[in-house]
Amino acid sequence: MNPILVEAMRGDTRESAHRGAIAVVDADGARVASLGDTAHPIFPRSAIKVLQAIPLVESGAADRLQLDDEELAIACASHNGEPAHTAVVARMLAKAGLDVTALECGTHWPRVEPVARAIAAAGREPDALNNNCSGKHAGFLCLACMLCDGVNLRQYAKGYVAPRHPVMRAVTEALQTTTGHDLARAPRGIDGCSIPTYAIPLRHLALAFARVGTGIGLSAGHAAAAGRLRGAVARHPFMVAGTGRFDTRVMERLAERVFCKAGAEGVFCAAFPERGLGVAIKIDDGNNARAAEVTMAAVVEAFVKLDDSEASFMGGLSDVTLRNWNGIEVGALRATPELRAFMPSSSG
Amino acid sequence: MNPILVEAMRGDTRESAHRGAIAVVDADGARVASLGDTAHPIFPRSAIKVLQAIPLVESGAADRLQLDDEELAIACASHNGEPAHTAVVARMLAKAGLDVTALECGTHWPRVEPVARAIAAAGREPDALNNNCSGKHAGFLCLACMLCDGVNLRQYAKGYVAPRHPVMRAVTEALQTTTGHDLARAPRGIDGCSIPTYAIPLRHLALAFARVGTGIGLSAGHAAAAGRLRGAVARHPFMVAGTGRFDTRVMERLAERVFCKAGAEGVFCAAFPERGLGVAIKIDDGNNARAAEVTMAAVVEAFVKLDDSEASFMGGLSDVTLRNWNGIEVGALRATPELRAFMPSSSG
Repeated sequence: MNPILVEAMRGDTRESAHRGAIAVVDADGARVASLGDTAHPIFPRSAIKVLQAIPLVESGAADRLQLDDEELAIACASHNGEPAHTAVVARMLAKAGLDVTALECGTHWPRVEPVARAIAAAGREPDALNNNCSGKHAGFLCLACMLCDGVNLRQYAKGYVAPRHPVMRAVTEALQTTTGHDLARAPRGIDGCSIPTYAIPLRHLALAFARVGTGIGLSAGHAAAAGRLRGAVARHPFMVAGTGRFDTRVMERLAERVFCKAGAEGVFCAAFPERGLGVAIKIDDGNNARAAEVTMAAVVEAFVKLDDSEASFMGGLSDVTLRNWNGIEVGALRATPELRAFMPSSSG
Repeated sequence: MNPILVEAMRGDTRESAHRGAIAVVDADGARVASLGDTAHPIFPRSAIKVLQAIPLVESGAADRLQLDDEELAIACASHNGEPAHTAVVARMLAKAGLDVTALECGTHWPRVEPVARAIAAAGREPDALNNNCSGKHAGFLCLACMLCDGVNLRQYAKGYVAPRHPVMRAVTEALQTTTGHDLARAPRGIDGCSIPTYAIPLRHLALAFARVGTGIGLSAGHAAAAGRLRGAVARHPFMVAGTGRFDTRVMERLAERVFCKAGAEGVFCAAFPERGLGVAIKIDDGNNARAAEVTMAAVVEAFVKLDDSEASFMGGLSDVTLRNWNGIEVGALRATPELRAFMPSSSG
């Protein structure tokens, strides 16, 4: 039974509660902090896009196609599908000699409502570029461009989302190596964007992020690729998510000290490079981002050295004032005392 | 510790899980079925709008203003803010000699995305008529029209959302009488639309719905008002929610055999009049509608006599196939065996 990490308060009364588990480990896999069941395998969903982007860099594809930092950052993204995002994805596809029709992620209306409404107001419909995973998929296609070895790229890339396609095999191999978890035996599901997703224990996910943050325990090629991806994201945090989003806001503020990435169903992973730590969070109910974000904010507060202004900023994310449609304060969404007590220290 | 009622499956693996509690009682308050902690007070939010609409009818306001069934139904609604909804609310306000400016519910973009996008595509912004609670608030204003007794209505109605305003006192009195719970001692919060919300045990909420469904245990005036409101909703289920919404779909299908109403934060209440039962559900995490809907569907399957076609329809709501952006089946959202086992019988 995982503990309650986040509570939604209405007035002074707890209205709703979110249970979950957290693993914080160093790059040797030593447990620094652990709350709830961190051995249970969970689907990491989009939280591990940086791991899935490693082959794009390590293979030499990023160099050959001269991908810039914005493009590398969006290869790790669950973006809002804002114009700035779709433009970068289109540019990346063009470098590979492809266009939107090569994407196999599917199409959805941006889930951030103002973005969706802006598209509707312009009288348009979304396309696959607007899919939050389009940057990751453009990265897969750039990798295919490197792997196809003279075969017609469009033909070679077709079906790149299937587990046995060489692109997905390279991606899965990177995931297995960085997490140190045997994916051949792991439960497999199909992700929202149609690629495979493997259930992996939180502590292995946290280990992968500690490795990505430090390079320790990775091959030289993986370490270099992870460092380059992290640097790209730190320089372009807007590309990873977008207007108003937690990941973008936190990384704009804390830059290379925090690399964090949300996933669907209440998953959140992070690397704190200067602390040498990796973090993985799963909220049991998985039902949207609110509890995972509050939990991640509290973990950042506990483990990352913050100045007063940064601490105040993060405090606003771990103890969120809730207001109603008239702007009246009605409650709060906040880390529980149980979650706070788990932390080895608090800068708050 | 409440049991797991709903599980989100990805492939064959449970990805997320929702805990919660359910009370099913008859109009004498006898417990027919109970799962989890049904004594713990919870904020019922919008699930009890029918109880809050009772004074509108009982006071004679509905008769004096010649409110029709659509207008009575939307007084019990959390609607989508679709054009058909806003038109009825505007009509209702006009009958009281008021307009949108009298509403104190605040303004929000409709939360059902196609509705919001349609407003954006038309180059418009939402107003308070689009607020999901505007029909309930129009009902409050019609009640004010009855209570103001010669005082200028606009002046009298100002601040009608405050707990001490005569309108809200009448609404609270109806809530206390139908639930049989002492609201003076109950934790109080402010609801999304700015009126007070009181924390009430699930078993008392279920009792109120059993009473509303049968008239048993209510004064003649309350019973008549409840019956009239239920009838209005059964004839116009679209008014209560809207396109694609669970409440509308289920009541369109099962008509007066089920009166169900969702609330924010994972609350769901229902009356099954022909069975003489009331139901109240709270999902612990409260994080959106998905788990409360699956739970309610499973409760309907267990307690309401369904023919094969109806059973198949409800089965699609208690075991929902999840598809990704490419339409590929990726999993299911479904009632757990634990929830199914709790039921006294199953028509499925």
